[in-house]
Amino acid sequence: LTAYEIILKKRDGGELSRAEIAFMVEGFLENAVADYQMSAFLMAVFFVGMSDAETDDLTSVMLETGSVLDLSAVPGSKVDKHSTGGVGDKLSLVVAPVAAAAGVRVPMISGRGLGHTGGTLDKLESIPGLRTDLSRHEFERVVADVGMAIVGQSPDVAPADRSMYALRDVTATIECVPLIVSSILSKKLAAGLDGLVLDVKVGRGAFMRDVESGRALAERLLATAHRLGLPADAVLTDMESPLGRAVGNALEVSEAVDVLSGEGPSDVRETSLTLASRMLVLAGLARDGREASARANEALDGGQALGRFARFVEAQGGDPSFIDRRGLLPAASVVREVRSDEAGFVTRVDAMEIGLASTELGAGRREVGDPVDPAVGIEIVVPVGGEVHEGGVLALVRANDVGRAEAAVGRAGRAFEVGPEQPAPRPRVLEVIEGPGTRARTSTGPRRS
Amino acid sequence: LTAYEIILKKRDGGELSRAEIAFMVEGFLENAVADYQMSAFLMAVFFVGMSDAETDDLTSVMLETGSVLDLSAVPGSKVDKHSTGGVGDKLSLVVAPVAAAAGVRVPMISGRGLGHTGGTLDKLESIPGLRTDLSRHEFERVVADVGMAIVGQSPDVAPADRSMYALRDVTATIECVPLIVSSILSKKLAAGLDGLVLDVKVGRGAFMRDVESGRALAERLLATAHRLGLPADAVLTDMESPLGRAVGNALEVSEAVDVLSGEGPSDVRETSLTLASRMLVLAGLARDGREASARANEALDGGQALGRFARFVEAQGGDPSFIDRRGLLPAASVVREVRSDEAGFVTRVDAMEIGLASTELGAGRREVGDPVDPAVGIEIVVPVGGEVHEGGVLALVRANDVGRAEAAVGRAGRAFEVGPEQPAPRPRVLEVIEGPGTRARTSTGPRRS
Repeated sequence: LTAYEIILKKRDGGELSRAEIAFMVEGFLENAVADYQMSAFLMAVFFVGMSDAETDDLTSVMLETGSVLDLSAVPGSKVDKHSTGGVGDKLSLVVAPVAAAAGVRVPMISGRGLGHTGGTLDKLESIPGLRTDLSRHEFERVVADVGMAIVGQSPDVAPADRSMYALRDVTATIECVPLIVSSILSKKLAAGLDGLVLDVKVGRGAFMRDVESGRALAERLLATAHRLGLPADAVLTDMESPLGRAVGNALEVSEAVDVLSGEGPSDVRETSLTLASRMLVLAGLARDGREASARANEALDGGQALGRFARFVEAQGGDPSFIDRRGLLPAASVVREVRSDEAGFVTRVDAMEIGLASTELGAGRREVGDPVDPAVGIEIVVPVGGEVHEGGVLALVRANDVGRAEAAVGRAGRAFEVGPEQPAPRPRVLEVIEGPGTRARTSTGPRRS
Repeated sequence: LTAYEIILKKRDGGELSRAEIAFMVEGFLENAVADYQMSAFLMAVFFVGMSDAETDDLTSVMLETGSVLDLSAVPGSKVDKHSTGGVGDKLSLVVAPVAAAAGVRVPMISGRGLGHTGGTLDKLESIPGLRTDLSRHEFERVVADVGMAIVGQSPDVAPADRSMYALRDVTATIECVPLIVSSILSKKLAAGLDGLVLDVKVGRGAFMRDVESGRALAERLLATAHRLGLPADAVLTDMESPLGRAVGNALEVSEAVDVLSGEGPSDVRETSLTLASRMLVLAGLARDGREASARANEALDGGQALGRFARFVEAQGGDPSFIDRRGLLPAASVVREVRSDEAGFVTRVDAMEIGLASTELGAGRREVGDPVDPAVGIEIVVPVGGEVHEGGVLALVRANDVGRAEAAVGRAGRAFEVGPEQPAPRPRVLEVIEGPGTRARTSTGPRRS
């Protein structure tokens, strides 16, 4: 067995055995397979694809390069939510406390922002004092005590994924379904979960640009998760425009608190409730989607979710007093307005452009390891469907540098399209797709429309 | 401009500009583009291909990474022959002296064996004393004095090709037409030639397995050579079975001398005369293929070619007395017979299996830098079309190690197929394809059949 033969076999359309996949992945980690061989292999996979069996094998081989978290000492059903990455996506900060308040244990492992997308860890770290680098013991304790914790990936989980992802990131092999599936699931299978809800983003601000490819990714994720023993459901959500109004770390935390307080944008509220409901079903805490939805609404509207969020912030070392005094969050020194050249209705806010504008302000990273500025970002004043007069303010740019602010005003301005007719309302939740294992268990939950 | 963007563009089917191609190739040589990015790029090219313009640009960018030989001080038309690599291919040792004896200047730059294929330099070095590492000055002098010289590639010629070929060799990206075209022509364009004859091998022992793909490669080679100013013709030759009877370095030298002496296998003779004739036409020494063929035959049958070969051996430091006393060539100590299980006609001798058996004996290399044994190899006793009785000898294995000899007997035996009916004779020369520049110049030469 040589790396050359395995690359050749994949290049020529062959189906690899588990031993061949393990040879590549483990060899790459041990430097027996060169990085230039792995990158050629990944590009061949990009073009040829992988069968279900190959995808399962790749996922479990990557999983087995690292350690697996044992959360059996934590009572209750442990369910996490994972998003494929978007712009303005503060859903974790709402979903986790809603689900936890309704009885789910949420051991959430999150990431950092890269490129145009934000990351939950960066958002949380804008809260004064809050730490996301809990030890394994602290993580278990917070999940057991509060019902939720949010931390970064431990370096001993699926190390092959970290190395392979870094290589894919510089060789244009990110956008490949079997590689995305194995990357996501190798980490989630290592987290000792009883269930997983996948938020698959679709549109201009997402990897998957259309519903068909998003659905294909969701189906592959669910099928592999099922075969490897992890019950999972997926929700396809729209990422043509940014989620909610706020893009940027502290701005998004503040918006999440608004939603937990019964205020804030309705798309963030509705999407969060849909995701939390699926978590309740997977946790066995609701018989069907309707019952789950009622319980999630109750947890949010009754204030228990907000209370749970405050306990979570405190348990991870943060000061929850910002919840009532938002001025305690980092604030930017420069504000600039994005104005409309014409009167009409906003027909489009391009999530990719807004995400890139926010990254250029310093809210995100161009490369792994770049610092982020917690205070900066963009606030959308008139979202899609809203009306604006000539010269009216479409968005606010919050920056700590005048030059960057003005560049962001230009880029954010290009994200907006204004037309004479009000566009039809666009749903944020596009589809709920139940996994092969959960279809049998639930009878009346929402199904693919 | 970044390597990432260029890989992405090629991956997604875009046509690269010359600047983008230069960024990759020059960046790779200067370590600004990582080897793992170059290998991902090469695999994307394998799947997506390259346009004519991209192939031309890649070829000339690779050419310009190195120096160009100036042979203008050598009088006469300088024409080389290049083969895409085969088994038992000693044609250079016949073609060069025939062409030189007929008036062509042949500044031949050759390679070494790798995998199942042999290399002209390895064959020549089995001649006692002969050197292939001439200085540039010595090379020019021998070409001017003798009319031919055969040397290895200078390291300052197309260094990008050497680095890229080494990477392709370990990442399964060899078999890709635009990459083959640019690799061959970047080196040949650096050799200061007035013309080039390409021997494109087709069949089990060649990169190109069928006539269609061989013709496609030949057409691409000729078109790019023409656009970059090098007049070229191509000959498609059959490589289903080894060329001639001898496979192995000294064995092939001896067979070439047989052919130069008016003896030896007719396929080696006829193919050599076809290639030498094309060289005469390209050199402007014959008005058409018929005249060229007559002059090549005359040079061979009149003994001038053999005399030229002897002068060439001496000029490159070798002792030509082996021509009359073959016992002066290295000889193997162990001889084993490959016998037939049944009576009948040989219907097939698999060139790939014979080539691999010869490499395993030590006549070739598994990896660049391996030593070769000049004495060992395989002699085919009954070629395709010949009759054998039950238990009759099909081939002789010549080795310097009993274990290797016996392994080679097994592998070489599997190369032979024997059947009840005599197969139809198979031509070795399949097609002569004139390049776009030479079609206009010649009127009655052989054309594609």
